[in-house]
Amino acid sequence: MSDSAPHLRLGTCDYPEHVPEDRWAAYARGQRELGLTFVRVAEFAWSRMEPRPGEYDWAWLDRAVEAYHAQGLRVVLCTPTATPPAWLIRAHPDILPHDAQGRVREFGSRRHYDFASPVFREHSRRITRALAERYGEHPAVAGWQTDNEFGCHGTARSYGGASAAAFPGWLRQKYGTLDALNEAWGNVFWSMEYGDWEEIRPPALTVTEPNPSHVLDYARFSSDLIRDFQAEQVALLRELSPGRFVTHNFMIFESGFDHYAVARGLDFVTWDNYPTGMLEFFAPPGVGEALKTRYARTGHPDLVGFNHDLYRGLLKGHGGWEAETGKTQPHTPGFWVMEQQCGQVNWAPANPLPADGAVGLWTAQAWAHGADVVSYFRWRAATMAQEVMHSGLLRHDETPDRGHAEVAGLDLGSFPLGEVPARVALLHDYESLWLYDQQPHSAALSYWAQTVAYYSALRSLGVDVDVVSADADLGGYAVAVAPAVTLVPPERAARWQAAVEGDGLRLVCGPRTAFRTPGGQTWAQGQFGRLSELVGARLLNYDSLRPGLEQAVGGGYAAQFWAESYRLAGAQATHRYQGGPLDGQPAVIRHGPVTVIGAHSEALIRDVLRDVLEQAGVATSDLPDGLRLSRRAGVTLVQNWTGENVAWGGRTLGPVSFEVRAEG
Amino acid sequence: MSDSAPHLRLGTCDYPEHVPEDRWAAYARGQRELGLTFVRVAEFAWSRMEPRPGEYDWAWLDRAVEAYHAQGLRVVLCTPTATPPAWLIRAHPDILPHDAQGRVREFGSRRHYDFASPVFREHSRRITRALAERYGEHPAVAGWQTDNEFGCHGTARSYGGASAAAFPGWLRQKYGTLDALNEAWGNVFWSMEYGDWEEIRPPALTVTEPNPSHVLDYARFSSDLIRDFQAEQVALLRELSPGRFVTHNFMIFESGFDHYAVARGLDFVTWDNYPTGMLEFFAPPGVGEALKTRYARTGHPDLVGFNHDLYRGLLKGHGGWEAETGKTQPHTPGFWVMEQQCGQVNWAPANPLPADGAVGLWTAQAWAHGADVVSYFRWRAATMAQEVMHSGLLRHDETPDRGHAEVAGLDLGSFPLGEVPARVALLHDYESLWLYDQQPHSAALSYWAQTVAYYSALRSLGVDVDVVSADADLGGYAVAVAPAVTLVPPERAARWQAAVEGDGLRLVCGPRTAFRTPGGQTWAQGQFGRLSELVGARLLNYDSLRPGLEQAVGGGYAAQFWAESYRLAGAQATHRYQGGPLDGQPAVIRHGPVTVIGAHSEALIRDVLRDVLEQAGVATSDLPDGLRLSRRAGVTLVQNWTGENVAWGGRTLGPVSFEVRAEG
Amino acid sequence: MSDSAPHLRLGTCDYPEHVPEDRWAAYARGQRELGLTFVRVAEFAWSRMEPRPGEYDWAWLDRAVEAYHAQGLRVVLCTPTATPPAWLIRAHPDILPHDAQGRVREFGSRRHYDFASPVFREHSRRITRALAERYGEHPAVAGWQTDNEFGCHGTARSYGGASAAAFPGWLRQKYGTLDALNEAWGNVFWSMEYGDWEEIRPPALTVTEPNPSHVLDYARFSSDLIRDFQAEQVALLRELSPGRFVTHNFMIFESGFDHYAVARGLDFVTWDNYPTGMLEFFAPPGVGEALKTRYARTGHPDLVGFNHDLYRGLLKGHGGWEAETGKTQPHTPGFWVMEQQCGQVNWAPANPLPADGAVGLWTAQAWAHGADVVSYFRWRAATMAQEVMHSGLLRHDETPDRGHAEVAGLDLGSFPLGEVPARVALLHDYESLWLYDQQPHSAALSYWAQTVAYYSALRSLGVDVDVVSADADLGGYAVAVAPAVTLVPPERAARWQAAVEGDGLRLVCGPRTAFRTPGGQTWAQGQFGRLSELVGARLLNYDSLRPGLEQAVGGGYAAQFWAESYRLAGAQATHRYQGGPLDGQPAVIRHGPVTVIGAHSEALIRDVLRDVLEQAGVATSDLPDGLRLSRRAGVTLVQNWTGENVAWGGRTLGPVSFEVRAEG
Ligand SMILES: [Zn+2]
Ligand SMILES: [Zn+2]
Ligand SMILES: [Zn+2]
Repeated sequence: MSDSAPHLRLGTCDYPEHVPEDRWAAYARGQRELGLTFVRVAEFAWSRMEPRPGEYDWAWLDRAVEAYHAQGLRVVLCTPTATPPAWLIRAHPDILPHDAQGRVREFGSRRHYDFASPVFREHSRRITRALAERYGEHPAVAGWQTDNEFGCHGTARSYGGASAAAFPGWLRQKYGTLDALNEAWGNVFWSMEYGDWEEIRPPALTVTEPNPSHVLDYARFSSDLIRDFQAEQVALLRELSPGRFVTHNFMIFESGFDHYAVARGLDFVTWDNYPTGMLEFFAPPGVGEALKTRYARTGHPDLVGFNHDLYRGLLKGHGGWEAETGKTQPHTPGFWVMEQQCGQVNWAPANPLPADGAVGLWTAQAWAHGADVVSYFRWRAATMAQEVMHSGLLRHDETPDRGHAEVAGLDLGSFPLGEVPARVALLHDYESLWLYDQQPHSAALSYWAQTVAYYSALRSLGVDVDVVSADADLGGYAVAVAPAVTLVPPERAARWQAAVEGDGLRLVCGPRTAFRTPGGQTWAQGQFGRLSELVGARLLNYDSLRPGLEQAVGGGYAAQFWAESYRLAGAQATHRYQGGPLDGQPAVIRHGPVTVIGAHSEALIRDVLRDVLEQAGVATSDLPDGLRLSRRAGVTLVQNWTGENVAWGGRTLGPVSFEVRAEG
Repeated sequence: MSDSAPHLRLGTCDYPEHVPEDRWAAYARGQRELGLTFVRVAEFAWSRMEPRPGEYDWAWLDRAVEAYHAQGLRVVLCTPTATPPAWLIRAHPDILPHDAQGRVREFGSRRHYDFASPVFREHSRRITRALAERYGEHPAVAGWQTDNEFGCHGTARSYGGASAAAFPGWLRQKYGTLDALNEAWGNVFWSMEYGDWEEIRPPALTVTEPNPSHVLDYARFSSDLIRDFQAEQVALLRELSPGRFVTHNFMIFESGFDHYAVARGLDFVTWDNYPTGMLEFFAPPGVGEALKTRYARTGHPDLVGFNHDLYRGLLKGHGGWEAETGKTQPHTPGFWVMEQQCGQVNWAPANPLPADGAVGLWTAQAWAHGADVVSYFRWRAATMAQEVMHSGLLRHDETPDRGHAEVAGLDLGSFPLGEVPARVALLHDYESLWLYDQQPHSAALSYWAQTVAYYSALRSLGVDVDVVSADADLGGYAVAVAPAVTLVPPERAARWQAAVEGDGLRLVCGPRTAFRTPGGQTWAQGQFGRLSELVGARLLNYDSLRPGLEQAVGGGYAAQFWAESYRLAGAQATHRYQGGPLDGQPAVIRHGPVTVIGAHSEALIRDVLRDVLEQAGVATSDLPDGLRLSRRAGVTLVQNWTGENVAWGGRTLGPVSFEVRAEG
Repeated sequence: MSDSAPHLRLGTCDYPEHVPEDRWAAYARGQRELGLTFVRVAEFAWSRMEPRPGEYDWAWLDRAVEAYHAQGLRVVLCTPTATPPAWLIRAHPDILPHDAQGRVREFGSRRHYDFASPVFREHSRRITRALAERYGEHPAVAGWQTDNEFGCHGTARSYGGASAAAFPGWLRQKYGTLDALNEAWGNVFWSMEYGDWEEIRPPALTVTEPNPSHVLDYARFSSDLIRDFQAEQVALLRELSPGRFVTHNFMIFESGFDHYAVARGLDFVTWDNYPTGMLEFFAPPGVGEALKTRYARTGHPDLVGFNHDLYRGLLKGHGGWEAETGKTQPHTPGFWVMEQQCGQVNWAPANPLPADGAVGLWTAQAWAHGADVVSYFRWRAATMAQEVMHSGLLRHDETPDRGHAEVAGLDLGSFPLGEVPARVALLHDYESLWLYDQQPHSAALSYWAQTVAYYSALRSLGVDVDVVSADADLGGYAVAVAPAVTLVPPERAARWQAAVEGDGLRLVCGPRTAFRTPGGQTWAQGQFGRLSELVGARLLNYDSLRPGLEQAVGGGYAAQFWAESYRLAGAQATHRYQGGPLDGQPAVIRHGPVTVIGAHSEALIRDVLRDVLEQAGVATSDLPDGLRLSRRAGVTLVQNWTGENVAWGGRTLGPVSFEVRAEG
């Protein structure tokens, strides 16, 4: 913590229990020599901490922590609850979760627990307490990670067992009476009305699709379970490890729970950034094969950037821990990349090597989007078990791998800490995601696909973006973009209206905005529900276009997958549909500072956004394909994500490279 | 019932229980003002009729029926058995059906019952009796719909529970002895012989494919269950609601039961016509992406037309109810479209808006194919639950949707009732379908695909077609076409032979005709079994062609997916294969009035059919692509299903439009 | 056994129990008249041998065997254990296997048993003993087939029931202590360490992928079960049927067990050869649609040839039964094709007719690859049950089918028995297959795909190949090719090293060679583990390329799907990568007689192999597309697998044809 000015720091994830003890000192020395500050350990080590029920073995971990300490490394410890040991599952098989097909998800990998299991909750608290009592005040320990990647492998929801048993109670708490629940869900629709709380099951294995309101509440219920599960660990860590941070490593595009709620009790947020796997495995529908091949060795800048900006915004407006000072501050904390890809991953259908320069580019991008720490996964490639094909900074044979060289070449001083000066907020909402994806109506679209299309348009215009909760304080922003916030309760509508009318905010909405009620129904008065006056229009028609079927929009645009039109009630049409069932109807409307884009067309979205940004005084640039700008702390990171030279601002950037410039 | 001449009447499906009671009067008034005659209600309302076991609540339905009555609307009531309420399932979870994967299909949507469940049968009779006692003689009640869409969501068969328990008894009834069953199924094949009735399970979860004879009998058994289930309701309605009709709304291309048997006790047949969803979701294999895109906004004329002609023919030769007089007549009844798409659907991968004019075109086509009533689904778009994305005549906000305007513009007087003058019968058989689809041998084909190919060829020649049972009386037809009747028992063979030899019928058969025995085996003497003499040939070879592999036929044709050849024994070859394993062998044969087409080639099928039709004195026309002719009551409906102008008969039809002309 | 010189003999598979007894004599006569020597019977006839528990009925089989005997045919009898009868399953439902989804695999087809079931083992021994006691010394009986196609329909492994119960015991036997097991599997990785043997389940239904070491041992365990199951039958047959052979009919590309271990107790190996179904259904990834269409009517020569060479090599180095003498000889036995396709199959998505000439070509190829007997499946096409669409030598109507004419036209005297003079060994290993396919890392590749690519390159160079165990004696070979032997234990490494250094063998290895340890981990010192010194290099990087992404190699090559590079430690690079992350790194290396090819490029593999072969003094030819050469007993079979004329050696071969020439 003693360099001249605050700047990006690095770390790695290490698993001393995976290698012979005689390697520990050498590894820690290598980590220090590479310039790392942090090392995350003991992530999945429950069976070594507690080999038999109640018999703790701390000796090995004491020595491991000492090895890092001896090299001046700061240790991040993990609660090991992502991997309950075999003896615990055998004693309490009802800990196991159930999948949506009614099958028990068995022991033998990880994340094999139901968040609702009372007995697992008890053991989660017990092991957390034991670990925190042992290491909570150890001088090497900088902080804590809870569990690992909540929701990964589709584990955010269990569709039977403990979760199924707990669901009726949660509903009773929420609704009080079955009449209220039946009304909220519209259960009259197919005689789905309940007469007893115990009749209510998880929304799985129904003959045809379940009620979306049922699905929505099951998602809320499951999200609450994760929030409460983690809160129990956080409370213990606060008590037993004063002055240390507590965080969690969130996963790429994870959709199974409300990240804002789960992040709330943390000091800051971390996430796990695997750009090539993200593109190959997690890309939303609409990202085609050609694009996947083009960016196979770097990942796509906007998919990665979106996740950075999303996780940076989770705790926006809340105070948090500061890496430089090691203290909790009242201002919004930075975030970490807890696991940063530094070679190839092992879990996508194809797992290409990163391009030369990609590890550096990813690190620089993470910094420019607000990361205070980037921690590489993992120190040495595992020689055993599920991840033997995953790379690390060291190869299986302990020689430095390609990523190691790139990390060694980074000039950390060129990455100063400071604010990301975003004047544009992109509004995001997990409940909208759950509803949208339950009824996408057009298989080629999804909540993430629609949301990322708007994000990518903004980034292609050279604009910095905060991804924030749809309920965030919008003060200070020039423009807010709500690409797919389909669920707008009255309070949210009122908040947006106040920001627009009171604060001069410009608001841009995508299709399906304010379509659904908090109960998951549609507004009886139709879209835009409580937002209608602000928008100055009502929904007229919506069209779901099969791939290959387009709907033209005046000005040479073509909507794909989705097109909706409006009946004007104050707003004006800036673009109209041409031909087809929507001929002549408004495709884009403007009502003073509010714009709604009804047609899903990347070119149209970009052009409309450019207009609005310029009117709002936000400067835009038409960036060349694959070039991106990100600003932080008064400087601009210019990034070339392509394999070719690209010119920008009078200079040429080589393939897969970056420059930090004084201005963009 | 007082207009000048009998003509098409309209209706809608309404769900008063889905909206506040203060809307009921306005909705009924709107329905009358739109010119509707019928309104179907209470389809899924069991939980409102009987909120708790044995406690009936009729008050709301009394008032709802009165609201329609006050506007002179005629009400069609439904038995609500498609949606057993939660309390019933909780009391008797063994009502739930099992899927082919061995899983219970749970409460939470609809159709969650096993037709074989004795306890559900009892409750089905009880609620039917209670409802019929209350409304059976209500002056507003015109008739009844049983349940809803038997078989939808793959519910025609349950593979466990009550059905599994009942299957052995059905088999014992049919076969008497296990020896007879083992012989009929050919169980010796893989030592599958049974020594005890209770050893016999549904044909599911077998290590590899089950015995097709086993599958065939399970389909027959399941079909009988549906027939008997409905018959119990029909008997009660007959007793308690004299003078009213009883019908059922069948589903698009539903394959799970014998529709002829299930229709037998009804006054007339109705079906649910969703042209765009049909094309996107139910199209047989072979309908490619290009065709789906071309007809995305109208559906394909021949897929829709086939279903019309199929359902018109279910009760052919049986008397039935007449919409005009409200009385049962000795002649073949017309049919209704009980649910007619009037906007977009919500259940296909893409759900495009209908083209301007499509709702009118669909209505006109339905009439021309024999519909006496077309009833739109639904009055107002639902604001809750599974179908919020499905449109109605009114939008969510109660404004008239696009379809409403088209309905308002229809001139019902231009659609007179009367006969469809078809001189061509297309022979259809559900047992053949079950066998064919269990062993398609060429994944690109199916029973429906092959059958619709012949139907479409006939329609492209401007010919009207009756789709009738393979066992129908063929008197009066000039030509009968059996595209895929693979199962021809001796009696059927004798009936065809009599019609050909006695009545001068011309018969055209597709490949695989008369391949299989009633037991599901092949004839020991080979194809064509008992039909061999009539055909004057035997099967020589059959060829299953992968996509991309074609077999040429002389005259410039190319068989796709299937090619079979014949050894002549009286017949003559009119076309022979060229090259390949079938080189020089007969591809099409003629034996006097009987023609067999062995090659699956759309062009060849069309050319052979044209020849046969002309010889039979049935006039043909080579219609432009997307133009169709349908005749009824002495006039011709000329339809343009394309988005372009099409000329016909000296006049030009605009995109998606129709004309009623004095002649075709 | 009396023709002038030893030559190929023919047989067929017949099922007298499938037809009326009055056909038996005629069928046997027809078989003799066609020139057949062998007939395989009673394959699935358990329910006829033992209609009720303990009640045997041999009368029908006595008469059937007599019918063949009367025509001088030699009978191959089968143990009927692939089809346990219904009464046995009903008495012991725990015989049924479980699939990987946790479902019981039910009665109603075949192979519905768990190899670990003690009660099934008992019944298997009982029926085998009873059958062998009855027919063991019958003069017509030439030998025995055990069961049928072990592993077919994914039955090599059961994931529950008896297998699940037996697995812990097998592990305890292997590892002795849980510490040893936990260490071998690397269970510390995700706290998967076991504290009790009974905690260990089959590797199924885990939340994410199971530990590959767990999967590997489950595969070994399951393979051992099959070995032991068969050994029990073999022991009884040896005891009760002296002087007769015992064999098993293995299946195309079956991967579920170690064929070397299962073959060990047999007199010779047979396999079931269905060339068109193999191409359509069993082709490894990478065989595209165009190739499938091109070879749709013949199958691909190298897929078929690979299986021939694989099965010929199973017992290499072991003595066996000789068809000519009917005696067991000390030299390596020939093999049989027990089921040879002679028309169309019924189990692929498309099932095209074989080309004219294909049945002859397949028979000739089988002979040239070492078959002593080719037995056609089946005599008459079945008229019942699952395989009614499968052809035989006779059609359903008992007329000779197309294949019958081709068999009748064969000149058996032109197919002399004798050695296949292969100087190239292709090394194969089932454990490597299991590990590779559990973690392919590149979805477009698999063990078979990589292995067959090398095999096909060799065949395209006109070279004869022995496919042998990776642990086979390599004496006598000029070149050994190890395409994908990823698991190289120390003993194997030592054996290879000795063959190279001591015997002058040239060794060519594909990527991933010697990557994994016997426990399924990677070598801590990295690839090539114990082989590093021999190879003179270490792995540097490996790259998994998505379809469409290529990695160039100097000389105009392009790697697809996989590219790995090396750090030289004695070896020299003969080819280097160009551009991309591997720019300049070695792609192909040579260390004296050892060559490693790291890039997956068909052209490169072929060119490198040609070089090595020439240096080893093995003559190569650049064969035209679709032309293949196979040598046996001093003559060369020239085969044209295409539909066009192909010239070779100054003569032209017609479409789908062959010639036996004095030299190649
Ligand atoms: Zn991770
Ligand atoms: Zn419906
Ligand atoms: Zn077989």
